[in-house]
Amino acid sequence: MDSNKQTARISRQTWHFAENVRLQASAVAVGPKEGEGPLAALFDKIHDDMYAGQQSWEDAERQLMEDAVTNVLKKAAITEQEVDFILAGDLLNQNITTNFTAEKLAIPLLGMYGACSTSMLTLATAASLVNAGYANRAIAACSSHNATAERQYRYPTEYGGQKPPSAQWTVTGAGAGLVGIGGKGPRITHATMGKVVDMGIKDPFDMGSAMAPAAVSTLEAHFKDLGRSPKDYDLIVTGDLAAVGYPIVKELMLAQGYDMDQVYNDCGLMIYSPDQDVFAGGSGCASSAVVTYSYIMDQLNRGLVKKVLVCATGALLSPVSYQQGNSIPCIAHAVAFEGGA
Amino acid sequence: MDSNKQTARISRQTWHFAENVRLQASAVAVGPKEGEGPLAALFDKIHDDMYAGQQSWEDAERQLMEDAVTNVLKKAAITEQEVDFILAGDLLNQNITTNFTAEKLAIPLLGMYGACSTSMLTLATAASLVNAGYANRAIAACSSHNATAERQYRYPTEYGGQKPPSAQWTVTGAGAGLVGIGGKGPRITHATMGKVVDMGIKDPFDMGSAMAPAAVSTLEAHFKDLGRSPKDYDLIVTGDLAAVGYPIVKELMLAQGYDMDQVYNDCGLMIYSPDQDVFAGGSGCASSAVVTYSYIMDQLNRGLVKKVLVCATGALLSPVSYQQGNSIPCIAHAVAFEGGA
Repeated sequence: MDSNKQTARISRQTWHFAENVRLQASAVAVGPKEGEGPLAALFDKIHDDMYAGQQSWEDAERQLMEDAVTNVLKKAAITEQEVDFILAGDLLNQNITTNFTAEKLAIPLLGMYGACSTSMLTLATAASLVNAGYANRAIAACSSHNATAERQYRYPTEYGGQKPPSAQWTVTGAGAGLVGIGGKGPRITHATMGKVVDMGIKDPFDMGSAMAPAAVSTLEAHFKDLGRSPKDYDLIVTGDLAAVGYPIVKELMLAQGYDMDQVYNDCGLMIYSPDQDVFAGGSGCASSAVVTYSYIMDQLNRGLVKKVLVCATGALLSPVSYQQGNSIPCIAHAVAFEGGA
Repeated sequence: MDSNKQTARISRQTWHFAENVRLQASAVAVGPKEGEGPLAALFDKIHDDMYAGQQSWEDAERQLMEDAVTNVLKKAAITEQEVDFILAGDLLNQNITTNFTAEKLAIPLLGMYGACSTSMLTLATAASLVNAGYANRAIAACSSHNATAERQYRYPTEYGGQKPPSAQWTVTGAGAGLVGIGGKGPRITHATMGKVVDMGIKDPFDMGSAMAPAAVSTLEAHFKDLGRSPKDYDLIVTGDLAAVGYPIVKELMLAQGYDMDQVYNDCGLMIYSPDQDVFAGGSGCASSAVVTYSYIMDQLNRGLVKKVLVCATGALLSPVSYQQGNSIPCIAHAVAFEGGA
């Protein structure tokens, strides 16, 4: 027991999963635009319209999360009954996508909210529960939908409002990962959980700049806590900093002595092609979830990369709060993966 | 390790905290109406106006959560730096009260959302992290505010809208608990985490009826998983079922063979006097948090009760979702406490 405790908590923010905790299966479902992007061949389900066969965008988002979770169950060849918990969240008020999905699946729910950092918030917490024996198997899941998010956070898409180039395109999609002990799939070895960082940025059309310092805070803590550097990873990605936030992180990290140059990318830049007209790039819970649970999982499973760090970035943007003149608090949570046996 | 795992997971939904996990300190802050209620003498901070010295109701709610957390730190005689995590949530969109509070305190944040079940969702998850060694100390916290909640979920209070007697009064307050290994304070022995239950109720002015089946689902699971019955507890409370939901739970539990009669109460009925004009009774995250972190903690510490079960009930109500014709999914999470050495 005592030795377990020593290894569980590396520092205030960084956890170690000593028990051969694995991402045993993962799946993603996306909308039409994502299905035209460079990673399309790796997606489990591509809906060819934004409604995903439903009557409302909200129901469409629910369909996406359900698709992701049911595909994970199928790939792992298990039933809902064999999963102890779903740890999930989304961008909609009251996590409503999550709540209805958990209801339909009848899996006990731990609801979480970390805006777009929810992908790694749920995965890290799932890994801690599995490592400690509080769950045999847990699913981490999250979703976002371009039209539900635009309506809630900015304006309904039908208004056709103009946006500056620093704006991002909320990814329509959902990702889910199954966490368990042993079996196949990459190991989940560590997680570094973030603090809320707020540099005073108030522009909801420039989330990349707002989130970059939170990413830097978590990446720095991760490297310090584990005595690692960017060179220890074959790939480091942030969740959805896109073209504006990505170079800020690179520069700030270099100023702290961490050269990210050869290994660093951003999921918001990976999920779309430059010609897809997405302003600065992708954003939303689904940005990091879709890329991690498809491309990164595939790269690890095929041995093309060995060690990967996913730092999911979240702008904890509240329309009420910014209308009241407050700045945008941000947070980032990072999870380290290792491929191979 | 293996024995630890055996004891950690009692069943799919029920956890055991074997490591002398304790609620080492707790504190609450409330608004004026709660300060006139029967439990007032046990509250750490009572604000005499709804603004709590701030410029907006949202800032007032933030002040309440900050008051609760800073009072916990004071009572435990520790600094923010000595707390590894805050696990917190509130009723406002994007958990904004939580995010700003965690930012100000600079404590790493795991954001959670379970509507009014958030009090025990955060406390149970904090206990699992502490028991497993992922945190030395963690704070669980949540808040609600009558005016912020009414504006967001129904109508701004200035409209003076009429309500049916089945409606409830959202508690203005916040509660926080410090979880650690050993020391003083009641033991946190078990938690039963809920599934989403939805019996098709669509009336946002009758949350008690909507939430009652979720409470029954979690209470039943708890008793079955541990081979316990209501008689094993000196006190069992639900979070905020109030005058409409409380008798439904009593009757449904009796039909399942569980006689709750001598031990069962509801925090929404305990926090106000019958003459306080609160319709069916209190609701909100703060209902169960304020009662648990003041009255129940005090009863346990003074030895007046030995074993208590708190089943926090949450209506995962989304205004968008019910305007789209959906029913209200609900969830309940329960935590068992034991007083004495």
